Amino acid sequence: MTERNIQVAELDRLAVEDQEVEIVERKGIGHPDSICDGIAESVSQALAQAYLDRVGKVLHYNTDETQLAAGTAAPRFANGDQPEGQKGGEVIEPIYILVVGRATKEYQGTHIPVDSIALKAARDYLREHFPALDLETDVVVDVKLGEGSGDLQTVFGEEGGQIPMANDTSFGVGHAPLTETEQIVHTAERELNTTFHDEHPALGQDVKIMGKREGDVIDITVAAAMVDQHVTSITDYTETVEAVREFVTELAQKFTDRDVHVDVNTADDVENGSIYLTHTGTSAEQGDDGSVGRGNRANGLITPNRPMSMEATSGKNPVNHIGKIYNILSTDIAETVVAEVDGIRDLQIRLLSQIGRPIDEPHVADAQVVTEDGLAVSDIEAEIRAVVDEKLADVTDVTRQVIEGDISTF
Amino acid sequence: MTERNIQVAELDRLAVEDQEVEIVERKGIGHPDSICDGIAESVSQALAQAYLDRVGKVLHYNTDETQLAAGTAAPRFANGDQPEGQKGGEVIEPIYILVVGRATKEYQGTHIPVDSIALKAARDYLREHFPALDLETDVVVDVKLGEGSGDLQTVFGEEGGQIPMANDTSFGVGHAPLTETEQIVHTAERELNTTFHDEHPALGQDVKIMGKREGDVIDITVAAAMVDQHVTSITDYTETVEAVREFVTELAQKFTDRDVHVDVNTADDVENGSIYLTHTGTSAEQGDDGSVGRGNRANGLITPNRPMSMEATSGKNPVNHIGKIYNILSTDIAETVVAEVDGIRDLQIRLLSQIGRPIDEPHVADAQVVTEDGLAVSDIEAEIRAVVDEKLADVTDVTRQVIEGDISTF
Amino acid sequence: MTERNIQVAELDRLAVEDQEVEIVERKGIGHPDSICDGIAESVSQALAQAYLDRVGKVLHYNTDETQLAAGTAAPRFANGDQPEGQKGGEVIEPIYILVVGRATKEYQGTHIPVDSIALKAARDYLREHFPALDLETDVVVDVKLGEGSGDLQTVFGEEGGQIPMANDTSFGVGHAPLTETEQIVHTAERELNTTFHDEHPALGQDVKIMGKREGDVIDITVAAAMVDQHVTSITDYTETVEAVREFVTELAQKFTDRDVHVDVNTADDVENGSIYLTHTGTSAEQGDDGSVGRGNRANGLITPNRPMSMEATSGKNPVNHIGKIYNILSTDIAETVVAEVDGIRDLQIRLLSQIGRPIDEPHVADAQVVTEDGLAVSDIEAEIRAVVDEKLADVTDVTRQVIEGDISTF
Amino acid sequence: MTERNIQVAELDRLAVEDQEVEIVERKGIGHPDSICDGIAESVSQALAQAYLDRVGKVLHYNTDETQLAAGTAAPRFANGDQPEGQKGGEVIEPIYILVVGRATKEYQGTHIPVDSIALKAARDYLREHFPALDLETDVVVDVKLGEGSGDLQTVFGEEGGQIPMANDTSFGVGHAPLTETEQIVHTAERELNTTFHDEHPALGQDVKIMGKREGDVIDITVAAAMVDQHVTSITDYTETVEAVREFVTELAQKFTDRDVHVDVNTADDVENGSIYLTHTGTSAEQGDDGSVGRGNRANGLITPNRPMSMEATSGKNPVNHIGKIYNILSTDIAETVVAEVDGIRDLQIRLLSQIGRPIDEPHVADAQVVTEDGLAVSDIEAEIRAVVDEKLADVTDVTRQVIEGDISTF
Repeated sequence: MTERNIQVAELDRLAVEDQEVEIVERKGIGHPDSICDGIAESVSQALAQAYLDRVGKVLHYNTDETQLAAGTAAPRFANGDQPEGQKGGEVIEPIYILVVGRATKEYQGTHIPVDSIALKAARDYLREHFPALDLETDVVVDVKLGEGSGDLQTVFGEEGGQIPMANDTSFGVGHAPLTETEQIVHTAERELNTTFHDEHPALGQDVKIMGKREGDVIDITVAAAMVDQHVTSITDYTETVEAVREFVTELAQKFTDRDVHVDVNTADDVENGSIYLTHTGTSAEQGDDGSVGRGNRANGLITPNRPMSMEATSGKNPVNHIGKIYNILSTDIAETVVAEVDGIRDLQIRLLSQIGRPIDEPHVADAQVVTEDGLAVSDIEAEIRAVVDEKLADVTDVTRQVIEGDISTF
Repeated sequence: MTERNIQVAELDRLAVEDQEVEIVERKGIGHPDSICDGIAESVSQALAQAYLDRVGKVLHYNTDETQLAAGTAAPRFANGDQPEGQKGGEVIEPIYILVVGRATKEYQGTHIPVDSIALKAARDYLREHFPALDLETDVVVDVKLGEGSGDLQTVFGEEGGQIPMANDTSFGVGHAPLTETEQIVHTAERELNTTFHDEHPALGQDVKIMGKREGDVIDITVAAAMVDQHVTSITDYTETVEAVREFVTELAQKFTDRDVHVDVNTADDVENGSIYLTHTGTSAEQGDDGSVGRGNRANGLITPNRPMSMEATSGKNPVNHIGKIYNILSTDIAETVVAEVDGIRDLQIRLLSQIGRPIDEPHVADAQVVTEDGLAVSDIEAEIRAVVDEKLADVTDVTRQVIEGDISTF
Repeated sequence: MTERNIQVAELDRLAVEDQEVEIVERKGIGHPDSICDGIAESVSQALAQAYLDRVGKVLHYNTDETQLAAGTAAPRFANGDQPEGQKGGEVIEPIYILVVGRATKEYQGTHIPVDSIALKAARDYLREHFPALDLETDVVVDVKLGEGSGDLQTVFGEEGGQIPMANDTSFGVGHAPLTETEQIVHTAERELNTTFHDEHPALGQDVKIMGKREGDVIDITVAAAMVDQHVTSITDYTETVEAVREFVTELAQKFTDRDVHVDVNTADDVENGSIYLTHTGTSAEQGDDGSVGRGNRANGLITPNRPMSMEATSGKNPVNHIGKIYNILSTDIAETVVAEVDGIRDLQIRLLSQIGRPIDEPHVADAQVVTEDGLAVSDIEAEIRAVVDEKLADVTDVTRQVIEGDISTF
Repeated sequence: MTERNIQVAELDRLAVEDQEVEIVERKGIGHPDSICDGIAESVSQALAQAYLDRVGKVLHYNTDETQLAAGTAAPRFANGDQPEGQKGGEVIEPIYILVVGRATKEYQGTHIPVDSIALKAARDYLREHFPALDLETDVVVDVKLGEGSGDLQTVFGEEGGQIPMANDTSFGVGHAPLTETEQIVHTAERELNTTFHDEHPALGQDVKIMGKREGDVIDITVAAAMVDQHVTSITDYTETVEAVREFVTELAQKFTDRDVHVDVNTADDVENGSIYLTHTGTSAEQGDDGSVGRGNRANGLITPNRPMSMEATSGKNPVNHIGKIYNILSTDIAETVVAEVDGIRDLQIRLLSQIGRPIDEPHVADAQVVTEDGLAVSDIEAEIRAVVDEKLADVTDVTRQVIEGDISTF
């Protein structure tokens, strides 16, 4: 028998799937905001790992404030005469990325090279995810990590089994299942940036997808940066754009029977040569700045139809930053409940922390549910409560998974 | 007779006022995120004004990416022996603020000193709003404004009467009326930072207010930075904290008959001297970084119970940035409708743009309403539609008001 | 009887005054290199003073690496219609100044706000010396002070009477008397930037003077930045240029009977409007970068006819930085000897330190002298030796005077 | 018959070789000032080459202002248990290098990516010369290149055969032959950083050599940074130090019959473990800042016994920057004269420019000579004059050689 304050109730609205208008957005990993999210989170993982390796526990840090100032580029179609490795255009003014945050630099006489670790993590992240970005010419990565304040710089997690205390009054919110439109938007970006990209290296990482559903009509709008070294002509470009359109259209049909219309790079003016061609695969090369926490929420989507937390999840310390933990955990709980409990059409999990209390004992854990027809909340309340309770008991799993990079935060 | 696509329908949920649990937050103007919002928006106003003065129209710019890297401070109680102007502690390492963005630097042979304008606007904003912040020792303001991309750098608004085209597919959302809890949270911060501050200069600008309502019980949690030069002792400190508590309690009672509990600086450990004392009135002096668009939405609140846009409103160009315009306009429309039309318990306005179409013709303008008991949506639909239509027709008013600083964006 | 290794010998060359060709240069206080020197030295003074005030002794620091990246400006003749305070043109892109160095940030539990002190000192210096430079729009001052290394971070001067040890093998060199050409070049800059400027505010601080003497003909070339807010027309400009020419010509005649030719702003092309007009009074506003130690030597001159030390004197710690101390002291010794001992036509003092030995006991103090006709070195050797010995005994006076700002270092 | 103003005269002093006291210094390529020189010059070469490749001529630029702010490091003896590639200690806070300067970014519609070129050149230089420096963790390279001013931004060298005009009144000075002490100091650093380093990778690039000769006794003091990954113990360290001492001693004896004493790392306190151990091979990793033009003169030495120019040669534009050209050319002339004309014990060449005149026609070219016993200046005047004249005629060779990297500037 648990003492956790878990409340299960009916959600006082239609399931999002049943609402008349739905809007969903996902900024791909190459969007300037997502680049910042990705760097912030990978710096966070590297720091957490370094602390564990060197002092056996994670010390205070937060690196959730990376800022990207866009560069300037002159993309150009690849030319057969250009030598391999120098095809296409070039970056004229490098992208500038400033990793900002706090991190404990010394612990009981051990110095932790947090700035060097952050620098390496950021550069490794860029190298791994942006094959067309030349780290020697196209980007400057700078680091400005301060020491944390005395009060916050306390150490936590000294004994493995202990539950940290909430450091703030904050809340997290998660949902499940994803609507058809949400699934299409999320999956399309992931698939474009993996499966499709493998066959079409012309597609850059900066893929932004907007989904809009009015009744039973779903419009998917894709803005996809193309990479000049893999595009030889305007024809080549338009063919790739069309390939994206077909790929997304096909993919969408796996998720829905509704009408789906897909548009790609609608702002292009092909006749005048005004197209979405880049040298690096991201609009950060030309005028689009970015920062952490401005794009996707912890579940990878922007969903104005649903409650969202403003919290920037990426880069936060996963041991004691309650906003990060609860946003990830609430999503995890929602997905698990829906996977294990039948009859749920829409589920919303909210976790509200209580400052100074163990994080497995939220002030309130609130499950709101829209049931399938013919089912009452009371029919499944106990099942839901059990999952929520179990997940809360295992709250430190979230921390572990985040440190190991098993959970995406954006 | 209008051709605008305006839809009025019933909102498929309870009015937020009638929901069981409600969470509201406001980051005061001294919160690091709000400092960035404030600077970004005041740089934007200064640039827009400079363009108007020098070339007669607003050129391309966006300055919505200010980054703040926190400093280090050593606050100390003011001491009678300290000379006037040097009371309290000091900043040890200055706050670093980097204004990032794009702005057109030349137009038909006229150079516009955008960097100098941005620098001055940022410093003026800080000087005006943060009396305890010494601009000679406590803060470094740096500026990194790039040129916009060729494509976007087009000029707009050449003829006064013309309506710009939407530059993106984006949406805005607004609500009215505010719930009791929302009103308390919003008003409390505004009053603390004006009326209360005038009498109690010890209160800094970094006031963060969290409101939580469960049924008919409202908990208001205030985190209020105190300014050391105006605090002589721990007793003095606790008295000011108590004054804040009383002030907010009294203020809350003007907005509600529900039970209200107010807590101030709950993380304090007075016995151990661990209190929320600052030298400058903001936590940016010690470990709290900030950036634009991470805090309050355009209506000044964070309201997870309501749909929110992720768009960073502050710093965006108010002439053609559709996300900014529609977030502000939808809020304005909601408030106007509620002021002019009786019988509305909750109203939500959504505006969805259509790229390439005039911004006064949104793809859809969607008014969803919860009526008072005994009233049908159809009873007031025409009235609502008329207000929405009129407001859309006057969309450029938003631009004008934003440039003149008449509308707060955070 | 002293044990100091003081050597007095004949100088193995003609007195510079008697050499056939002589070249002398002085960069005025508004030259970008001198701006950096001035900031570095004033930051140094402020830090030394702060250490004395707070912990009773000067701790380890060196701030001899300020870097200035030039801005962009659009100077314009002042116009009668322009309101007071806004006359002339403007700075388009601010000058960027980065104060680099090391400084001890904590001593026995006392935090010293070295970054804030440096920031204020740099800004105060600019404000005091550059009346046409608007600190709110024309310049960004940034600070990057590291901690010193463990080894060097030791404390010195604990007991007032103790002589520090030399921290390096280094040398200083000084000369006296100045030649006529040297006197003209040095005095002209000083007088232009004080007496003349008081009556002609149109003259900016960036005055660079080159003196060349061939036999008995002295050519003085002045490059003088004019300040737009005080210049109404091309005629006004040329009149001020002519006034400078006359002023320097008259001044020169007080120092010499030789022929003197003065040229001012010879690179001007008045007919094409290509003149040396600035908005701020320094070429740092437009394309001329600067850094510490690249301009004047410790005696205020660049004198290729004489041995010079490459050491950057400005910004160095005056307690234990032996290069700084010996450059200043050797100049001081040379001047004192010449003032007190008759019959010296040219004197060169060299001080060579020995690492780890007290700084009042140089490895060698070497006085080389050209005597007036009819006098042998042996006639005055004892007198010279006595002055050198006395000055070395009082070596810590140099430190005191530098900290109090009584000695110019550039 | 030439019209160049070439003057040949007796030098009014003893040959430096015959003076009683001589001081010489060389900062090795790993000294923070030399790192800046090296980067500045290699950025300059890369830009010049890029201009030639892209627009067929060198455009306006100057990149002579690189600033290095030191990092923090924790060197440690290499341990057999450490995996290859991770031996020794680590850099805790990266070195920060800011490349400052001006460069023309556009010419007749062609964009030149000067920032990207500079970034790559700087990083390539570091990679090539500092094998122990990990560019992913140990250093941040930032770039801040402004546009040149309108006036200066003119294009030069349009026709291959044309001689540029002097852009300033400036002078250069060169000497030959090197004294024994000068040869020892210069060669020792070069050999340590090549031959010796190849066999002893423990020796880092930061080798600073000070030579002092009093009469016939030469003291050579070497400060040599050791690289931790190649040093396993204090014994290993002292053995390498001793190897350096022996190597330099042997080398010195090839240049002189005088007594030579060599000291290496005299500041070490081996018993207390205070030694000159680094992780990267340069003191820039720990507290030693650097900037361009503060170290070696164009001939690779600091020679207070000889006239020196203050001009920073590295990073200057070799097409029209007269200070750079004349410093290099005067050294080249001096060496050539001494190689081709017998009987010269000491030679000093001075070149003084005349603004606005072709650079092959200096205001004066001044050869001052100390002849061997029994020879008069008049005996060799004609020969000297001929060499000077020929070299001046070929002045553009200097430019070409500098661009191709054939001439060291520091």
